[in-house]
Amino acid sequence: METTTSEPLFPAMLTHDLLQHRPADNVEFLNSLPAEEAAELIASLPPERAVEILDQPELTAAPEIVQLLPPERAAALLTGVAADRATDIIHLLEAPARANLLARLDPETRASIERLLVYPPNTAGSLMTTEFVSVPSTWTVEQTLQYIRQVERTRETIYAIYVLDQQTKRLVQAIPLRRLISAQGDAPILSAARSFAPITTSPLTDREEVARLFRKYDLLAVPVVDSAGRVLGIVTVDDAIDAMLAESTEDVQKFGGVLALEKPYIQIGFAQMIGKRAGWLCALFLSEMLTASAMQHFESELEKAIVLTLFIPLIMSSGGNSGSQATSLLIRSLALHELQLSDWWRVVLRELPTGIALGAILGVIGLARIALWQKLGLYDYGEHWLLVGLTVAAALVGIVTFGSLSGSMLPFVLQRVGFDPASASAPFVATLVDVTGLVIYFSVATIILRGTLL
Amino acid sequence: METTTSEPLFPAMLTHDLLQHRPADNVEFLNSLPAEEAAELIASLPPERAVEILDQPELTAAPEIVQLLPPERAAALLTGVAADRATDIIHLLEAPARANLLARLDPETRASIERLLVYPPNTAGSLMTTEFVSVPSTWTVEQTLQYIRQVERTRETIYAIYVLDQQTKRLVQAIPLRRLISAQGDAPILSAARSFAPITTSPLTDREEVARLFRKYDLLAVPVVDSAGRVLGIVTVDDAIDAMLAESTEDVQKFGGVLALEKPYIQIGFAQMIGKRAGWLCALFLSEMLTASAMQHFESELEKAIVLTLFIPLIMSSGGNSGSQATSLLIRSLALHELQLSDWWRVVLRELPTGIALGAILGVIGLARIALWQKLGLYDYGEHWLLVGLTVAAALVGIVTFGSLSGSMLPFVLQRVGFDPASASAPFVATLVDVTGLVIYFSVATIILRGTLL
Repeated sequence: METTTSEPLFPAMLTHDLLQHRPADNVEFLNSLPAEEAAELIASLPPERAVEILDQPELTAAPEIVQLLPPERAAALLTGVAADRATDIIHLLEAPARANLLARLDPETRASIERLLVYPPNTAGSLMTTEFVSVPSTWTVEQTLQYIRQVERTRETIYAIYVLDQQTKRLVQAIPLRRLISAQGDAPILSAARSFAPITTSPLTDREEVARLFRKYDLLAVPVVDSAGRVLGIVTVDDAIDAMLAESTEDVQKFGGVLALEKPYIQIGFAQMIGKRAGWLCALFLSEMLTASAMQHFESELEKAIVLTLFIPLIMSSGGNSGSQATSLLIRSLALHELQLSDWWRVVLRELPTGIALGAILGVIGLARIALWQKLGLYDYGEHWLLVGLTVAAALVGIVTFGSLSGSMLPFVLQRVGFDPASASAPFVATLVDVTGLVIYFSVATIILRGTLL
Repeated sequence: METTTSEPLFPAMLTHDLLQHRPADNVEFLNSLPAEEAAELIASLPPERAVEILDQPELTAAPEIVQLLPPERAAALLTGVAADRATDIIHLLEAPARANLLARLDPETRASIERLLVYPPNTAGSLMTTEFVSVPSTWTVEQTLQYIRQVERTRETIYAIYVLDQQTKRLVQAIPLRRLISAQGDAPILSAARSFAPITTSPLTDREEVARLFRKYDLLAVPVVDSAGRVLGIVTVDDAIDAMLAESTEDVQKFGGVLALEKPYIQIGFAQMIGKRAGWLCALFLSEMLTASAMQHFESELEKAIVLTLFIPLIMSSGGNSGSQATSLLIRSLALHELQLSDWWRVVLRELPTGIALGAILGVIGLARIALWQKLGLYDYGEHWLLVGLTVAAALVGIVTFGSLSGSMLPFVLQRVGFDPASASAPFVATLVDVTGLVIYFSVATIILRGTLL
């Protein structure tokens, strides 16, 4: 559908109303509309405001909107949008629309977008923009400030100034604007720098690592340099914040056993939602079938002591729960670099006593429950009820210890073999512990109940 | 223990080495030392560097270090530290040490710290600093720039300038420094402002909400205003990033069924670790006891058809897994405000078909597994194996649907009754689904197997 501004779908009042609010608030409103109406509205706005709106990563339908706008208009607006954001939008267009739009851009914008399009998603290269302030190292403070005044409108940030070697174009220093403001005008620009080498990153660095630099060094921007030390672009703090948020959403979803969603929940289609969930669910189901095999293996014990089956769900779930706890703790510790791979044995030394203590607490409660029901006449667990209770208690110690240990080691194992430790999901840990839990339970039962029930 | 600089524990070389690196890197090294040695080292550094190090929130032992330093020295250093950070450190001191230190601070520093100490943790008030740039609305751009040059060294940020009404001291505008830089010097300061009212927050606003403002409006600082509109302080983006990180760590830990840890995993004592985990684990264990009651209730069915017990773990875990998936998706959607409380019915309409479809997929796999084992002679499920298979398949559809529905509704219910939706943990969902899952399984079995096995 092509939209035109000659037959406006919306009254001019609505356009006027949008202008009374901030672009970020406009985006919230536009997100609640179908893409056609959003495109119509954007077309009715003054170009500067339309650019500001398209500049917001929160505008989820931006690629659709750009495709719905008249191509000339779309190209004109994208030229005003920050290069990193324009690249993200173009990246999501289908191939014909992408080629069509790129062809209409002015050569300079097209070149910088094409340079950025080559970097894989979720890398520093895909987050960076080429609109930064750089000056030669021979300039003075005043020259630099003059230059900043000229280019301010076209740069994503002016709060970090990148000083380049005149010959090699390598990055020499990154200077915060605040240091320039209070420096002497005729002093050489490098006199305002601190003595440390600038913090930099490479274009293929993962966004999680980039976010860590911002957190650690409290930066407003990080330069992305090539192997020769030349600045390719910069990542600004607002993009780092968006990357952090996307990472933590992914972590929670992965921990819940879902493939990360690329869009908000309500915008995911039915088939796509099934696709994101069915894979893991089936994999877990197939693994969990081992519990049926384990149960079959202990069939004769089951038939002799049917009372044992009563506690299977209780015991298995305790193993899964203690495993989830340990996994969630270790995922974060590894993600925040509080722990290194080589610290795994320190974790084992903590989880072993922790698991035994937690298992003992649950074991005492479990034994008390069985004794209470028996004594109060609520249920008859048979003449060997005490031995049954002891079996449950001993099995709980074993299973909770196993759950804590395997739940805490799983993130280490994943990181060791090159996966994100955050891929360890609660359902996966529960499945891992369930099968072993059954084996522990029946093995303990065989020892304690031999000669009585079994 | 009092440390003195007259008998240095470390060679001067180590001090010199620290100065070659950034304060943030020094912090990483100091975190790896016992507090006594870290205090000794900090005492040996030039005061400006010691202040920069204490300024980093990542220095975990800062309160201990401050207590180990000679009181006069500690007070002198804290005067240089940003007011928000100094408040955090003093907040963590024991009462006598706190009073002792406060008494030694100069009146101005003490007053600003005491003002900040009243705000509860995790609020905008506890994150804010009082070191911001404010100017009267009657000034010109050049006057403001002159003033910024003077005060630059003592302000946490100069990239946002707060323009106050001269009489009432109310906040009129917040102007980014970049707009001043490119404005005419003799223009009134307010001419550099945009037409929108400034984004503000109140001192008791939760840090999660504050972080959302930064994300939405791409800010570098947010002013915290009282009910009369006067600026109490500002929250800067680096503190907002730390708050976001702490929130997402808390979310993952809560989702794993652990109370949020205040310190890194390896620094938590054994008793404290048990305390963080035992409460939830016991609560879940007690709820899960209902599964034993449910099993007791179906005892006669169990005895007649022991083959049914073989699939209990498999069926229950599938319910828990589908519930975890749904919960993790909805926790994030609610946290990111993609969905409102009133959208619950839209989610029901999505989860109902999704749950049925996922359950049907697992049901088909389950039935195939039973048929395959039976036909291949791997296990004999008896003459009614097909009915047993159908029972398992039908129960899976019911349980996965129930799991998806209850897992997705739990975060809504929690938010509705005033809890953080992120308090919904995977173990809690699993427990919720386990008991109902058993009832569904045996009810389906009673219907399908009546007259044959039951």
